Amino acid sequence: MPDAISELAARFRAVRAHSEALAAPLSPEDQQLQAMPDASPTKWHLAHTAWFFEAVVLAPHAPGFRPYDERWARLFNSYYESLGPRHPRPQRGMLSRPSLDEVLAWRRVVDAGVAAFIAEADADTRAAAFPLIELGLHHEQQHQELMQTDILAALALNPLAPAACPGEPSPWPAGVDGWLGFDGGEAEIGHAGAGFAFDNETPRHRVRLEAYEIARRLVTNAEYQRFVDDGGYRRAALWLSDGWAAVQSQGWTGPLYWRDDGSEFTPHGPRPRAPQAPVRHLSFYEAAAYAEWAGARLPTEAEWEHAASSASPPSQCFGALWQWTRSSYEPYPRYRPWAGAVGEYNGKFMVGQIVLRGSSFATPPGHARASYRNFFPPGARWQFSGLRLARDA
Amino acid sequence: MPDAISELAARFRAVRAHSEALAAPLSPEDQQLQAMPDASPTKWHLAHTAWFFEAVVLAPHAPGFRPYDERWARLFNSYYESLGPRHPRPQRGMLSRPSLDEVLAWRRVVDAGVAAFIAEADADTRAAAFPLIELGLHHEQQHQELMQTDILAALALNPLAPAACPGEPSPWPAGVDGWLGFDGGEAEIGHAGAGFAFDNETPRHRVRLEAYEIARRLVTNAEYQRFVDDGGYRRAALWLSDGWAAVQSQGWTGPLYWRDDGSEFTPHGPRPRAPQAPVRHLSFYEAAAYAEWAGARLPTEAEWEHAASSASPPSQCFGALWQWTRSSYEPYPRYRPWAGAVGEYNGKFMVGQIVLRGSSFATPPGHARASYRNFFPPGARWQFSGLRLARDA
Amino acid sequence: MPDAISELAARFRAVRAHSEALAAPLSPEDQQLQAMPDASPTKWHLAHTAWFFEAVVLAPHAPGFRPYDERWARLFNSYYESLGPRHPRPQRGMLSRPSLDEVLAWRRVVDAGVAAFIAEADADTRAAAFPLIELGLHHEQQHQELMQTDILAALALNPLAPAACPGEPSPWPAGVDGWLGFDGGEAEIGHAGAGFAFDNETPRHRVRLEAYEIARRLVTNAEYQRFVDDGGYRRAALWLSDGWAAVQSQGWTGPLYWRDDGSEFTPHGPRPRAPQAPVRHLSFYEAAAYAEWAGARLPTEAEWEHAASSASPPSQCFGALWQWTRSSYEPYPRYRPWAGAVGEYNGKFMVGQIVLRGSSFATPPGHARASYRNFFPPGARWQFSGLRLARDA
Amino acid sequence: MPDAISELAARFRAVRAHSEALAAPLSPEDQQLQAMPDASPTKWHLAHTAWFFEAVVLAPHAPGFRPYDERWARLFNSYYESLGPRHPRPQRGMLSRPSLDEVLAWRRVVDAGVAAFIAEADADTRAAAFPLIELGLHHEQQHQELMQTDILAALALNPLAPAACPGEPSPWPAGVDGWLGFDGGEAEIGHAGAGFAFDNETPRHRVRLEAYEIARRLVTNAEYQRFVDDGGYRRAALWLSDGWAAVQSQGWTGPLYWRDDGSEFTPHGPRPRAPQAPVRHLSFYEAAAYAEWAGARLPTEAEWEHAASSASPPSQCFGALWQWTRSSYEPYPRYRPWAGAVGEYNGKFMVGQIVLRGSSFATPPGHARASYRNFFPPGARWQFSGLRLARDA
Repeated sequence: MPDAISELAARFRAVRAHSEALAAPLSPEDQQLQAMPDASPTKWHLAHTAWFFEAVVLAPHAPGFRPYDERWARLFNSYYESLGPRHPRPQRGMLSRPSLDEVLAWRRVVDAGVAAFIAEADADTRAAAFPLIELGLHHEQQHQELMQTDILAALALNPLAPAACPGEPSPWPAGVDGWLGFDGGEAEIGHAGAGFAFDNETPRHRVRLEAYEIARRLVTNAEYQRFVDDGGYRRAALWLSDGWAAVQSQGWTGPLYWRDDGSEFTPHGPRPRAPQAPVRHLSFYEAAAYAEWAGARLPTEAEWEHAASSASPPSQCFGALWQWTRSSYEPYPRYRPWAGAVGEYNGKFMVGQIVLRGSSFATPPGHARASYRNFFPPGARWQFSGLRLARDA
Repeated sequence: MPDAISELAARFRAVRAHSEALAAPLSPEDQQLQAMPDASPTKWHLAHTAWFFEAVVLAPHAPGFRPYDERWARLFNSYYESLGPRHPRPQRGMLSRPSLDEVLAWRRVVDAGVAAFIAEADADTRAAAFPLIELGLHHEQQHQELMQTDILAALALNPLAPAACPGEPSPWPAGVDGWLGFDGGEAEIGHAGAGFAFDNETPRHRVRLEAYEIARRLVTNAEYQRFVDDGGYRRAALWLSDGWAAVQSQGWTGPLYWRDDGSEFTPHGPRPRAPQAPVRHLSFYEAAAYAEWAGARLPTEAEWEHAASSASPPSQCFGALWQWTRSSYEPYPRYRPWAGAVGEYNGKFMVGQIVLRGSSFATPPGHARASYRNFFPPGARWQFSGLRLARDA
Repeated sequence: MPDAISELAARFRAVRAHSEALAAPLSPEDQQLQAMPDASPTKWHLAHTAWFFEAVVLAPHAPGFRPYDERWARLFNSYYESLGPRHPRPQRGMLSRPSLDEVLAWRRVVDAGVAAFIAEADADTRAAAFPLIELGLHHEQQHQELMQTDILAALALNPLAPAACPGEPSPWPAGVDGWLGFDGGEAEIGHAGAGFAFDNETPRHRVRLEAYEIARRLVTNAEYQRFVDDGGYRRAALWLSDGWAAVQSQGWTGPLYWRDDGSEFTPHGPRPRAPQAPVRHLSFYEAAAYAEWAGARLPTEAEWEHAASSASPPSQCFGALWQWTRSSYEPYPRYRPWAGAVGEYNGKFMVGQIVLRGSSFATPPGHARASYRNFFPPGARWQFSGLRLARDA
Repeated sequence: MPDAISELAARFRAVRAHSEALAAPLSPEDQQLQAMPDASPTKWHLAHTAWFFEAVVLAPHAPGFRPYDERWARLFNSYYESLGPRHPRPQRGMLSRPSLDEVLAWRRVVDAGVAAFIAEADADTRAAAFPLIELGLHHEQQHQELMQTDILAALALNPLAPAACPGEPSPWPAGVDGWLGFDGGEAEIGHAGAGFAFDNETPRHRVRLEAYEIARRLVTNAEYQRFVDDGGYRRAALWLSDGWAAVQSQGWTGPLYWRDDGSEFTPHGPRPRAPQAPVRHLSFYEAAAYAEWAGARLPTEAEWEHAASSASPPSQCFGALWQWTRSSYEPYPRYRPWAGAVGEYNGKFMVGQIVLRGSSFATPPGHARASYRNFFPPGARWQFSGLRLARDA
């Protein structure tokens, strides 16, 4: 038990430090930027993840807890209706105060508070609160990836094309050509057993699959370039109706950050597009149109999970790009949201969104698993999202 | 074979006549109205269903066919990219010409053309074209219901609250209280065998169901009134996030056509809300919020179809209201769109929509079946849509 | 006095009949069309001008008056806050009821009511009410021109390009080349003396003018074509800032109804653009940009009126096109709105609008005068609007 | 002449230093904020005013000039079409780079460059360029006021209501009750003679005035409170039509920064509203509605200038608040924009705007004069704008 406690304390320190390490290369002004209503400033992410520990762990469980500044809850509560009023999401970029220094100071206080709480809580409190600390860490890891996609969207609007990260990107994990076949029949998906999972991954349940094949790797820049060159963005017949409307109303001619000179905008600034690298910053609409053009389709999330969980899974399931599936984000059979405020974490978003599976190069270590269900609206392109093909067997 | 031919000819006459019978009580000015971009004028529906037979049946299959007026294809093509350019959907209400009389004259010519074609086609042509005539009839039946929902939406904007239909509505089919239970296990859904079905109902395939219960009848006005009275439209916790955003941005306080005086706007004009009648003109968001409030949930489309196809199905499956399910509109396993232009009929809309099942009081006779998949965006309220509860067993 | 009474009765009959004559070539469906929020359906114009006589003349002055249908006031009150609530302007096109026939029947009843009132009123009532009848007639004449511009805007949205009027347009009044010079000094503008004028034309007052020249005729299609050919719509330097924003956001490349084949859309349908005819359907922004390109400017409204009132006025002051001036629509010194509801007629629009002077080919006979102040927002293009140049002397 | 040179050099240093002094209390994050498309970040103002000297003075006139960073012109060019492409105005807040420190470093280089240029230019260059330096200083003074209004608009969106300035506001200059009368007749307005003026203030010219009275002071908070209490924001009859539309669509119930607790948001944070202080942060629409309620009107700009230039002018003409007039912003007779790029400074905005006269407490010393024409759209409320009444004599 003391081992579990010290392990949790160590992980808490490590996860918290990683958030700040991600922000470190950015100036206070960078960290203030909000590119669009769906994105948040870096500083806001840092503050929100502090607020989460205050509101979800310390406030209900730590005796004598007092918030660092009670006026800040409304600023940094994201979407928890049950935890009080919230600053309008599109105006997060208007919060120059508290300053970055104040937010970092707040994080220090929350860090100390949680550390003390971990060390001192009695057994009953541990049983009630440690799962929430665990959740808080996974929550913060989600925001670590969002910090990277959101600042990329903001810096992309600057004609100077500044880099969010110094240095050079890591080379891509190698992909493997070809297809992997699976028989039809009953399968099980969803999380079960020990280890953390979000409520939306449960309960583990049986599904019926038809025989299918799934690509061993993601679609590459070179392949996607052929789609573009073949008039992919000009041929309505390849697109879902809403996708074609997006192409026309938003003037899409290629992935979000492709530039005319053959480069793409990355966290390291503009970089040549590597032909063999997985194509990224696609919407679901583009992924589906590409699949149509390629005479294939997107995998369902059950197909994806079944393959990724198999003895010899396809390559690039994790650590490359999130992978659009053909599945809308819906509750699993017998799904129950968590009790309390964190019941708002996942369940209330189960309409209008598409499931992505896997993880990306920006997903923090330890945050990925085969049952993980990421989700975004079908037109979203600012995530590290790519595609893997599937087809009926 | 001659019987099949004369039967088709008779059905063609009957379906076509029914469209015009529905329009008959409406003035030329009424038939010009377009309440919103998603709705179409009555006259446009009459013209579009004429165009469909011209473009899909006669043009490719009738020797020597000449369009009645070749300029009209662009006016009355709805969304078939492969059949040429289209007048913008939001401006269908701007087409005062051709006049209603001209459209009706056109229908006469198309009627005669299809009748002659049915009578005279050789066997090969019959094999190729009669399924398209069949499709054209089901297509026209779909528009018959839309004619009714669309004119209702238009007349609702007139402070005089005029009636689209003379006379009084039929009394509601009686509902039966209680729940009906089904075991978990594998089941089959989807269309198979003889008889018409849309491509989106196929192929029939196996699904895995968990044990569930489904309500024997639809939720009533009286029940929904209790939800409203209990603050249903003011309690964020009951709503999906997108639903709550709709409540706030659009100021919803009750179903679309509820009026403050206890009446609701119907095709017969304002009428008192019958307490035991199924509540109608709900969005998916409202249906889901009600279910949450009631401690239940919406059925999946597989659950619905499995129950409706059972030996003793629940009441009010057909002929009352379309019933929102908890299922996004997605392709069935191994789904293949029809070949040719009619491949655009269903498949390209398989994102961003929710499946409704059953049929409504306005659905033409012969148009309903257990495998039928209707679909609308989750915020749509102008259809004849209600809800049936389900729960885990 | 009896002569004045019978003269008024005759004019009343003539003006009222003219409205209906303008509408006569249009079908009930045509008369239902509303092209945009700023335009109104033909039927609405017919009904509104009936309502005006009811609300402004008969209701306050005719003993025992009862409205034809008391529910209609809210439908056909345009913008008179003091006369009760109003149907939203953008939804005038949604009023299929009352039907055109009902509106025409109403007009008959109002016609009879006003005729009887004219014949029977005592001297005191005449003194109070006859000026309002006079106003009602001028009001109806304004709507006669709007009926023509509004239906043109609606029919222009129909790819069939139908004609609002049968037959051929009249040839243009001849223009005279050159400039007309006026000395600087004090001048008087505004209406005084007998004869009808709107309140916004009063009081007559002195203004200071600098010496100026004004063109003897309007700018022609041929001249405007040279502006277009010279990159007029691509050169920011020629435009006011708001005008350039309009060019870009709305994609303007020429006057509103110019078509690529050298024709323009007119009340008689598409017609070749006569080179010597005045260019029409310009916004103020375009008029000002053309003037800049031509090394000239637009006249102020005082300059225009001074020239038009002079002994030898320029040609095409009246009966050709309304002429944009460089003057914002503001109250004259010591301006007082009329008393009562009709005080809302003009005064409350005195911001955000530009004055046009003269009259157009569509202005009813007897409705034009040198002091008349027409006004529209600077981006409006659907009126019969052209331009005349001026320059400093 | 050396005196004139050293005087210019000294003024240049003083004006430039004042901009930075205004920004000094603000953090880098504060200086990044853009509240709305019409407002700009503080840092952007600092950079734009550096760019102006580079682009307008040094680039055309200083031998061997090289821009500090040639990529920055597109970021900080405000609206000069002739000086190249521009970053979209609504996205100025997205420019985290260059950083505040980089911008300040740039300003140092520009300061040194202009100082050297002033000291070393030969007589011909002085004649050509010194007027542009003078313009650059007045330009920077305009931005000094905008820096204050723009940051106020941004900080007002923060629920913490932070102060842009430390300390307390200065007390208001005392107002004098009553009216001041002026005879009708010819008067002269506009700038003439020595001393700087913008092109829009010229040429001085004669105008005709009717006899009028003008209030000796501005309308106060206490007076405006009575208007509010009397239903001012609920009575359509008091408002211009566009103003009433703004009240309804934007939900106005009082001046922009009034708070429910009797305070108002100021550069020093929320402060009690002093009853005798001039009411501020009004739109033209509100000013006009108040005047209507008070049985008065707004002065024309000619009336205002004539009064302010008289031997015994009204109080609070300068140093209190900008004062809405009843005049649209139009060119004076024989107005000619400056030659070259700076011709875009004023002339192209002469439509859709209303003139304000005087100056505010935030206007830099030496920047006000009786002929000064400030202008904003009629709905703008974020400026330091109040009102002074006038009436016909």
